[in-house]
Amino acid sequence: MTKPAGRVTLPSEEGFVEETKAMMERWGADAIRDSDGTALDAEIKALDAKIYTAYFPTRGHNEFIEEHMEECPQIYLLSDFTMARAEELVIDLLQSYYNEQLDVDYIHDPKTYWQVTDRTTGELVPEQDWKVQREGNKVVIQHTTLWHEYSVSFLAYIKWDPVQMYNHITNDWGDKPHEIPFDVKQPHTNAFIYDTMKQWLQDNPEVDVVRFTTFFYQFSLVFNQYGKEKFVDWFGYGASVSVAMMEDFRKEKGYALTAEDFVDQGYYNSSFRVPTKTYLEYVDFVSRFVSVETKKLVDLVHESKKEAIMFLGDQWIGVEPYGPYFASIGLDAVVGSVGDGTTLRMISDIPHVKYTEGRFLPYFFPDVFFEGNDPVVEAKENWLTARRAILRKPIDRMGYGGYLSLAYKFPEFVDYVEKITDEFRDIHDHIQQTKPYTGMKVAVLNCWGALRTWQAFTVAHSLYSKQAYSYYGILESLSGMSVDVEFISFGDVLENGIDPSIDVIINAGDVNTAFSGGEVWKNARLIELLREWVYSGGGLIGVGEPTAVSHQGRYFQLADCFGVDKETGFSLSTDKYFTGQTDGHFITEGMTKYNFGESMKNVYALHGGVDILEYSGGEIHLSANQAGEGRAVYIAGLPYSPENSRLLMRSLYYAAGKEAELHTWYADNPYCEVHAYPGSGMYAVVNNSHEVQSTAVYDGQGNTSSVELEAGGILWQPIREGKLR
Amino acid sequence: MTKPAGRVTLPSEEGFVEETKAMMERWGADAIRDSDGTALDAEIKALDAKIYTAYFPTRGHNEFIEEHMEECPQIYLLSDFTMARAEELVIDLLQSYYNEQLDVDYIHDPKTYWQVTDRTTGELVPEQDWKVQREGNKVVIQHTTLWHEYSVSFLAYIKWDPVQMYNHITNDWGDKPHEIPFDVKQPHTNAFIYDTMKQWLQDNPEVDVVRFTTFFYQFSLVFNQYGKEKFVDWFGYGASVSVAMMEDFRKEKGYALTAEDFVDQGYYNSSFRVPTKTYLEYVDFVSRFVSVETKKLVDLVHESKKEAIMFLGDQWIGVEPYGPYFASIGLDAVVGSVGDGTTLRMISDIPHVKYTEGRFLPYFFPDVFFEGNDPVVEAKENWLTARRAILRKPIDRMGYGGYLSLAYKFPEFVDYVEKITDEFRDIHDHIQQTKPYTGMKVAVLNCWGALRTWQAFTVAHSLYSKQAYSYYGILESLSGMSVDVEFISFGDVLENGIDPSIDVIINAGDVNTAFSGGEVWKNARLIELLREWVYSGGGLIGVGEPTAVSHQGRYFQLADCFGVDKETGFSLSTDKYFTGQTDGHFITEGMTKYNFGESMKNVYALHGGVDILEYSGGEIHLSANQAGEGRAVYIAGLPYSPENSRLLMRSLYYAAGKEAELHTWYADNPYCEVHAYPGSGMYAVVNNSHEVQSTAVYDGQGNTSSVELEAGGILWQPIREGKLR
Repeated sequence: MTKPAGRVTLPSEEGFVEETKAMMERWGADAIRDSDGTALDAEIKALDAKIYTAYFPTRGHNEFIEEHMEECPQIYLLSDFTMARAEELVIDLLQSYYNEQLDVDYIHDPKTYWQVTDRTTGELVPEQDWKVQREGNKVVIQHTTLWHEYSVSFLAYIKWDPVQMYNHITNDWGDKPHEIPFDVKQPHTNAFIYDTMKQWLQDNPEVDVVRFTTFFYQFSLVFNQYGKEKFVDWFGYGASVSVAMMEDFRKEKGYALTAEDFVDQGYYNSSFRVPTKTYLEYVDFVSRFVSVETKKLVDLVHESKKEAIMFLGDQWIGVEPYGPYFASIGLDAVVGSVGDGTTLRMISDIPHVKYTEGRFLPYFFPDVFFEGNDPVVEAKENWLTARRAILRKPIDRMGYGGYLSLAYKFPEFVDYVEKITDEFRDIHDHIQQTKPYTGMKVAVLNCWGALRTWQAFTVAHSLYSKQAYSYYGILESLSGMSVDVEFISFGDVLENGIDPSIDVIINAGDVNTAFSGGEVWKNARLIELLREWVYSGGGLIGVGEPTAVSHQGRYFQLADCFGVDKETGFSLSTDKYFTGQTDGHFITEGMTKYNFGESMKNVYALHGGVDILEYSGGEIHLSANQAGEGRAVYIAGLPYSPENSRLLMRSLYYAAGKEAELHTWYADNPYCEVHAYPGSGMYAVVNNSHEVQSTAVYDGQGNTSSVELEAGGILWQPIREGKLR
Repeated sequence: MTKPAGRVTLPSEEGFVEETKAMMERWGADAIRDSDGTALDAEIKALDAKIYTAYFPTRGHNEFIEEHMEECPQIYLLSDFTMARAEELVIDLLQSYYNEQLDVDYIHDPKTYWQVTDRTTGELVPEQDWKVQREGNKVVIQHTTLWHEYSVSFLAYIKWDPVQMYNHITNDWGDKPHEIPFDVKQPHTNAFIYDTMKQWLQDNPEVDVVRFTTFFYQFSLVFNQYGKEKFVDWFGYGASVSVAMMEDFRKEKGYALTAEDFVDQGYYNSSFRVPTKTYLEYVDFVSRFVSVETKKLVDLVHESKKEAIMFLGDQWIGVEPYGPYFASIGLDAVVGSVGDGTTLRMISDIPHVKYTEGRFLPYFFPDVFFEGNDPVVEAKENWLTARRAILRKPIDRMGYGGYLSLAYKFPEFVDYVEKITDEFRDIHDHIQQTKPYTGMKVAVLNCWGALRTWQAFTVAHSLYSKQAYSYYGILESLSGMSVDVEFISFGDVLENGIDPSIDVIINAGDVNTAFSGGEVWKNARLIELLREWVYSGGGLIGVGEPTAVSHQGRYFQLADCFGVDKETGFSLSTDKYFTGQTDGHFITEGMTKYNFGESMKNVYALHGGVDILEYSGGEIHLSANQAGEGRAVYIAGLPYSPENSRLLMRSLYYAAGKEAELHTWYADNPYCEVHAYPGSGMYAVVNNSHEVQSTAVYDGQGNTSSVELEAGGILWQPIREGKLR
């Protein structure tokens, strides 16, 4: 009997045929890929597996771009803020930038495209008061106001592909040539990209799947004068700009973009910034352009009878997988790196593709696969966090990256991945593409909405951030929870009202960020819609500084719903009497300790009707309040942990007024979860922890059974007869 | 030999003559006072002591005011925010107010003086859309917008003196009549107050000192529907309002005050609010009026050959002791309650009086003086915290309040006060009215400036506040530190520049408060002046959120000076490399642990030149930076402790570039301090702690000696010959 196979992609490399075969057998791989820095030889390509090959449309052809350096991608950069201590001020544009990466653009008229700004007043310096000094890349400003800080926003060319640059520097590649990127918006490049692709497709008939890594515009990745990362924004559209792009934008929209639209005071339109209308229009404009150009490549691939996969990373800018143009591209699949449950759902929920694929961790690189280290530790953590999310919405395929020869030297790792891949296929066999039972629908409300599904609170892709982890835990909890999740924007609510199928709305974030919402909370229509919805029975959960903007005596604009507000110093003279904790509350049942992460200070109850669930240090961190027919829950912060995931789940059921339904397909041990698939007649009880766990399990009718699960265990059971609730 | 006597005021009471004599002898008292609830009989009044008698100009005459209830003081109150759930909304004005204290004013036209506000939009409801329903004190609003919150700002009469009310309720005085206050602005009252005063002066020839408790307008003290404190603001001008006051204001200023000018979204112009121009003009207007009326009373007292003392509390509104009209009143003295070093300096620094007097704690009341309790504990704590400040700027007299008969039963307390009073006189004998050595001049910069000298960060008088104690520690530290202290406002700086005699400027507070400054930090002129000053050699210390307002890419507008800024979520994409602590720094020498109180999150260094002195939890809490010729120090919070006081002192010397001068009249043990009086040729080494302490002492020439001091000890030494530094 052959082992079950399929759904798994294996990295391979030259001169590793027999081992590759063995590993294919062990892990049931049905596809083989190359990786950055590896190549597949003919023997491997001849194996009985689909062959994935990475394709880089916009780099790796220095012979071309060196002839057209004016077609390198561009980016707007902000000089250092520099203080005037004399009437004349000289600003060194590249002082804190990496000159191996960036060149100042002197081709296009600085007076047209650059801005010199008095950052103390925010006013532009008149054109006649500054001049460019190409020698040394300087701008000289005259008639400054002493003690004011000035900045220059200028256009630069990116002359080193940032991802190759990162790998080159990190791996000390020495004199290996710098790959120069090129911009599809430019005439020679545009023709070159399509011609090259055509030729490549002809030259590589054995390739089954073209893995685009990725398309045209790199997320923002800028290095400093020491050759170290200065700025990284996985969502950054900065490097999609060019004079051609701006001019086309102006023609279509009837107004011109300015340097400030890009440099944004130095914040570069971070996704934590409340996006301006202009920026949203620019994102849309670039996305539309990119989708048209992307479709051309995808069509070429399809004409060659190959599949086109997009890697969700690197030059993914403009290919918003949840955006309005994504369907039109016609991609077959998306592959992305799985860091946790959230990133898994970010991949697996992508619509309009035939399949999704997750690249699991760890990469087979020497930083993990070295003698004395146990790569199984990271693999286990990665699998267990991702599995929760897979059980809600599975990716179709999984795979790894890096040097197979390295992984091969770690037999326990090979064993563990064999177990994972078997379990992954087993999950698919049990789910049979059916939808799991969900107890309710939850909407995450922020400025970005569906466009950035599963992407809120993310700084750099999958990286921890002190200022975001207390919010990111919400997504991570939801990613494996038996609820439907959608992301809605303030614009959605204002335009379309609130979808009545939503049970609970979550608003979370620090004040003034795009996730909390900032000034939008002064919009009376938004307040009306949310109040009407809550008081009519809706559930609202606020985390951190929800609905926050200082306005008309409130800091939380829906303080009436939450029953709590944050003291910002202005109402210290008002007595605050309500500090007593409510014991025996549904939300906190079983909770013994709390972790609110960075937490939030100075939250207090407005009246005695508020259920204060956690009060310490003179402030509230967890509370619930009845508002008309609805309920609102306040949480000071929610870093991910099984306990916090459970706390959120109980808060959701309480806010929705569905307490009685919690014990449906439910495990009372927070380290365990139950996922039921009425369509396939099966349910799974999973142990998300690395220790043995016992739990009571409630089925769809509320019948309980007791289950013990090994560390990381999963137990499949048939759903017993009887009417499901 | 008689004990030294003088400078001490003793409370006494009826039928307690012999004991009073004995206590006078023990404590060296030369004045006797009555207290609230006590009276002095003839025998006591005949003793060889000045007699102080409390005088209440605006209460205690119900027989008068009951005939003129329209002359009770008024206050603008804000109703509860009430949400519209139908087209008509009824708001109960007094729903959360104490109806024994307040009556709605229906005498003056509500349509002229009240405001009905849509608090969701901030817009006023048109007059024709609301009507008053006197029955049940209601306002009925028509044509509301559903789900909006509405409020009514209305004029009310205060019919129970708030201080008597507080004492009445707290002490359960039962059916004792409620004292009805009256307003000096009104015609009958104005005449009555002066006539009554004249008569009283005639009737009380044995009184030497009239202790006004206080004059006309009570600080804001409003109770809720349960007869408990709802709102208390020791700086609140709310209860000084009346239609007459507003009309006079309009005539003089040419514009009308509105209800919103008083209720201020419900914040009631808390001194934590950045004061509006209108509010400052109102404070000034009332102060001018009050000073004129006050002077009339003081003149009457003087005509009777008595002294006039003001008690700094109760109805002190309009008698700003650091304000422009205070000198004109002609008061002989101010007496105030001493809660700590800060409140002591608030009293002792008051200009334009012949003497100042501090009322020490504990009050001789049964809450402290009960069997089994040791009142010495509070007395010691009070004395040691106050003594630091006395040694900088002594009050001229000290005293106690309450029932002497209670204190008399605690011989150890009597002994301790004997020691204190002796020590107090001894301090005066050594200082001989000379100015102590100071190492520099420090200015505290906020919206209030000199008007609120030693009053920043204070919520209710001397009360702890979670949101303010981390800043109040600055004042408490400075109150006993060998530096000159002044309070300057942003207006002062903008009008007059920075006094060159200032060594260090401190800006401290939470963002948007009057103490940090809020929007004023967008004022380019302010930035210019401060930068010029720092870069030319000035010292700047920021605590909490100094110079904070989100503007042009900065949160701390003087981030260039501090070298640090606060991450508010917008620049998370920018790498922050500078986390390494600088060891062996002047500021942190000898520091072993830190306490930043409420502290501040997410502060990071802008460049590697910043000396990071404390870094934990991924953020900076203490740092120093060179800015041109000047220096800036950032501190996340500074609750009072001897260690933090020392930390501030070292920070001041560092910021001022005067490190070499620190060891001048200096004790290296932070629990000890040195105060030198070159004018009298003496210096004191004090132990501010309750334990024995040893310390090295540095004299004016840097010579050291070693000293051991008993708990709370003070050691006087002559200054040795030689040139003082």
